[in-house]
Amino acid sequence: MMRTIFLLSLLFALSNASVQDFCVANLKRAETPAGYPCIRPIHVKATDFVFSGLGTPGNTTNIINAAVTPAFAAQFPGLNGLGLSTARLDLAPKGVIPMHTHPGASEVLYVLSGSITAGFVSSANAVYVQTLKPGQVMIFPQGLLHFQINAGKSSAAAVVTFNSANPGLQILDFALFANSLPTELVVGTTFLDATTVKKLKGVLGGTG
Amino acid sequence: MMRTIFLLSLLFALSNASVQDFCVANLKRAETPAGYPCIRPIHVKATDFVFSGLGTPGNTTNIINAAVTPAFAAQFPGLNGLGLSTARLDLAPKGVIPMHTHPGASEVLYVLSGSITAGFVSSANAVYVQTLKPGQVMIFPQGLLHFQINAGKSSAAAVVTFNSANPGLQILDFALFANSLPTELVVGTTFLDATTVKKLKGVLGGTG
Amino acid sequence: MMRTIFLLSLLFALSNASVQDFCVANLKRAETPAGYPCIRPIHVKATDFVFSGLGTPGNTTNIINAAVTPAFAAQFPGLNGLGLSTARLDLAPKGVIPMHTHPGASEVLYVLSGSITAGFVSSANAVYVQTLKPGQVMIFPQGLLHFQINAGKSSAAAVVTFNSANPGLQILDFALFANSLPTELVVGTTFLDATTVKKLKGVLGGTG
Amino acid sequence: MMRTIFLLSLLFALSNASVQDFCVANLKRAETPAGYPCIRPIHVKATDFVFSGLGTPGNTTNIINAAVTPAFAAQFPGLNGLGLSTARLDLAPKGVIPMHTHPGASEVLYVLSGSITAGFVSSANAVYVQTLKPGQVMIFPQGLLHFQINAGKSSAAAVVTFNSANPGLQILDFALFANSLPTELVVGTTFLDATTVKKLKGVLGGTG
Amino acid sequence: MMRTIFLLSLLFALSNASVQDFCVANLKRAETPAGYPCIRPIHVKATDFVFSGLGTPGNTTNIINAAVTPAFAAQFPGLNGLGLSTARLDLAPKGVIPMHTHPGASEVLYVLSGSITAGFVSSANAVYVQTLKPGQVMIFPQGLLHFQINAGKSSAAAVVTFNSANPGLQILDFALFANSLPTELVVGTTFLDATTVKKLKGVLGGTG
Amino acid sequence: MMRTIFLLSLLFALSNASVQDFCVANLKRAETPAGYPCIRPIHVKATDFVFSGLGTPGNTTNIINAAVTPAFAAQFPGLNGLGLSTARLDLAPKGVIPMHTHPGASEVLYVLSGSITAGFVSSANAVYVQTLKPGQVMIFPQGLLHFQINAGKSSAAAVVTFNSANPGLQILDFALFANSLPTELVVGTTFLDATTVKKLKGVLGGTG
Repeated sequence: MMRTIFLLSLLFALSNASVQDFCVANLKRAETPAGYPCIRPIHVKATDFVFSGLGTPGNTTNIINAAVTPAFAAQFPGLNGLGLSTARLDLAPKGVIPMHTHPGASEVLYVLSGSITAGFVSSANAVYVQTLKPGQVMIFPQGLLHFQINAGKSSAAAVVTFNSANPGLQILDFALFANSLPTELVVGTTFLDATTVKKLKGVLGGTG
Repeated sequence: MMRTIFLLSLLFALSNASVQDFCVANLKRAETPAGYPCIRPIHVKATDFVFSGLGTPGNTTNIINAAVTPAFAAQFPGLNGLGLSTARLDLAPKGVIPMHTHPGASEVLYVLSGSITAGFVSSANAVYVQTLKPGQVMIFPQGLLHFQINAGKSSAAAVVTFNSANPGLQILDFALFANSLPTELVVGTTFLDATTVKKLKGVLGGTG
Repeated sequence: MMRTIFLLSLLFALSNASVQDFCVANLKRAETPAGYPCIRPIHVKATDFVFSGLGTPGNTTNIINAAVTPAFAAQFPGLNGLGLSTARLDLAPKGVIPMHTHPGASEVLYVLSGSITAGFVSSANAVYVQTLKPGQVMIFPQGLLHFQINAGKSSAAAVVTFNSANPGLQILDFALFANSLPTELVVGTTFLDATTVKKLKGVLGGTG
Repeated sequence: MMRTIFLLSLLFALSNASVQDFCVANLKRAETPAGYPCIRPIHVKATDFVFSGLGTPGNTTNIINAAVTPAFAAQFPGLNGLGLSTARLDLAPKGVIPMHTHPGASEVLYVLSGSITAGFVSSANAVYVQTLKPGQVMIFPQGLLHFQINAGKSSAAAVVTFNSANPGLQILDFALFANSLPTELVVGTTFLDATTVKKLKGVLGGTG
Repeated sequence: MMRTIFLLSLLFALSNASVQDFCVANLKRAETPAGYPCIRPIHVKATDFVFSGLGTPGNTTNIINAAVTPAFAAQFPGLNGLGLSTARLDLAPKGVIPMHTHPGASEVLYVLSGSITAGFVSSANAVYVQTLKPGQVMIFPQGLLHFQINAGKSSAAAVVTFNSANPGLQILDFALFANSLPTELVVGTTFLDATTVKKLKGVLGGTG
Repeated sequence: MMRTIFLLSLLFALSNASVQDFCVANLKRAETPAGYPCIRPIHVKATDFVFSGLGTPGNTTNIINAAVTPAFAAQFPGLNGLGLSTARLDLAPKGVIPMHTHPGASEVLYVLSGSITAGFVSSANAVYVQTLKPGQVMIFPQGLLHFQINAGKSSAAAVVTFNSANPGLQILDFALFANSLPTELVVGTTFLDATTVKKLKGVLGGTG
């Protein structure tokens, strides 16, 4: 009994020494360059480390016939500070995750179902494209333009993981055509013609 | 035509400037603290970024009724230097991935099929355990003891991703009982009794 | 005199430019993934960079005949953000720092007095054990199971340093037997028998 | 004299202890994820830390009326391993550095001469555009699409610096239209029409 | 129209997922080891990413005939968390940026005008000095003593960039002679004689 | 038996997956920015993780009455890639470790014996000095000028640890007076007078 008490006091001292194995995000506080401030360990529950939103397909009734369901720090506070995040991709027939980049992370993709043609372009302008079956894995290096397209006739799905709790996501078409970037600047910096730019701005809700 | 030539020479100059979006491992060369030396970009093919070994269940006919199929840098050279790796877990009925740690990475687990009870213990000795269904995600902070157990009557599977190309894997029972660590040291540092230690060394092939 | 004034105004401008050589922790504020917020430089004193708690042996009258006295960010706010922390180990005769890991740091140990048998087990399950004399140094790679045992008949002591202000400390026996992790899960994930688990839970104050 | 000898032997011992303040690249050796292997310190000269190629304007007689002259690790081996690189931008009248990203670095731009309209688009699709005069500085966060356009009637120039010795450079038009990425995939992942894609592939030398 | 709505809801979902491409500093909040907390993205303007203070020469009417105008996080909040900062150097005839270090960053220098002799000393005590013309670049590895001197008869200027938003700046003479470090300690740790130390303390406003 | 075989094959597969818990330096190979290439794990022995050179005082019969005995990567290859190194300081009566910096690491000092006055100067030019007794710890932030002086009448000793395997060491007096840096440049960048500079160059073996 005495020994147990001595031991527990040792345990108590030691456990005080190590308060940050994890840092569940307090989303109400201002972010820092390294992520959100942590909630206190005493308030952390097992469910904080679980995310349930990737189990069902996202809504693919949209222009791209596809959906991206993110589990980044904002959706899944338990991964704040741990250098990882994840997402689910759903591709209905003809679905496409258009050309995009993740400015802050590399990505691993695991095909859950269906067939997906995926690819990226390197800084040296080389093209790496493959058509993937369920269970195949593809890696996309940080910051490079890449895409995923449904290569089959049925729906396809994949789970992707990033080595950052906040990888970012910049979709090329949105960046060019779905905001206030003036048509003149889009034309000037892409060599697309103004008619094409204005048409896509119309489709995607851009102005200017 | 002239313009194209000018442009291409510009492209050539620029593409020379950026030779390391990725670093496909040359496994024949000595590793460095940051990973393996790269093969030359000209030899890199799209297939270097794809790994096909996780699509089928690993062999679970073993003492743990489970299998871990890794896709780390040694198996999947394309992820060398990119700060990510992945693996597949298979759990037959009664299967268990025993208590283990990854010394160099946090881990995200996505349940593919079946039901898995997973958990980890923090430095502060708190226990975080959850039973997960397909599509649920759990995150395990770097370096902490954790486990996965089949919680159902059928097989279960999961894909896990690490934020290191070389996360390491230390299985507790193997570290204690499947090597030459003398029984006396195991007893002295775990408070297990010598009979238990020797029995498990017998099962797991340890000596000393 | 004029020159001095010009110089001092230069100095003033420059010193404003560089406010974070260090970041003494404000322990009352919520931690972030990179550590605690800083107190304002004007409140920092020389004594903030000094820790005096490692000069005397910890209390070794306990079940392990040993003590760990940590100087992590929580005890020594001056090292917050600087990527270092330290601790003192005391080992009475028969004392042992049981099998443990530091999830977030590698460790250097310097023997102050006595004789210590120390070792670690790698991911590849190799065992590295050495008996150390005063003045000898041993390094333990991040996240791996390791231990220290008094190898002599008198007391031994060591100072250890970690490359993180918050290395964490997970003691194997506490993680398995001193919390609410159910006996069934401990048995299932370690292959120890229930009798052994329950006995150690009894000794170490665990439940379930 | 004796003292000098003692001192020099001390100096000798100490200088042996610190061989890597820098790591001038040996470009003939295979790169690693952290950069090129170093040439031996004894072969390093002061000129290895100087780059002279940014002092004169690049050739802007090309389709973009602009030039990027890089000083990355491949051109300037002295910055290998130091986490910095630099480049010069030249913009003739009507010149433009088209939409591009640097997958591995943030960028600071300093306007040397002329007037430059520069901008970037965030992951949240917000547009940040400014017209800059000589001496003004703009920062572009890592991995985001950005551009620079000559905003005046005379030539403009800028020096840019990246926080990586190997920031990468992916020019959008080249990635889409100057390689073998099949027209069908470009159309499918950008919603541009096939006629536009084929026309630009023609201009930029793309195939497929 | 319906499609646009679907798309916009997708865009909305995605843009929520990625709130930290940048982290414009809230200078009123306590700093953390990784920098200042961020202002909310909605309050960020294009001008936050622009700094205009480097376009004109600093005041060089002082003892060093030189000026350093910093654009670190405290002056240029837009670069907080982005791992870069910049500054302008002005050197009147006979101007000198005295021996100094940046404890937290390497530095790239680009000569804007005039002629500058710059150099650094390595840990191995090797000296690397070069005289630079406009457009030449020199790199100074992290933490090493270095200097810049006007090598011509007219004014010189340079822009420097650091791979940290908070590189620090420690000027040797100020550290030794412009504070309260007791003369006895300066003498004891530099082997300068007390007369010299006291004279320079007099010039630079030091005490003790 | 069969089960053991299955288990061992599992173990074999797993242990192949994790080859870099550590990276014992192959000092014969060219260094990289992240450290030396590793020797093969099969050649690693327990003694590679032990360094015995810090147990006895260094030779203090020299101009500073002090000695620094380093255990950096070059002396202690086992810590290559692990982000830690260590050293022993010995201070005879009147001994001093003169003003110096470590360009690449912060430092923790633990006093082994005697009494040591230690201090550092911040970028903001604040002075932090303390006199330390055995068992006291002081931390020195990265890259800042600091010193240690014997504050007692008997010998003193300390063990220091750095958060880099290659912290560097730049001793101010050596950088200024023990190399070929021309007297004119030393005078110009420090405001010391030429007589003082030449005298110290004479004592320390400098030229120019």
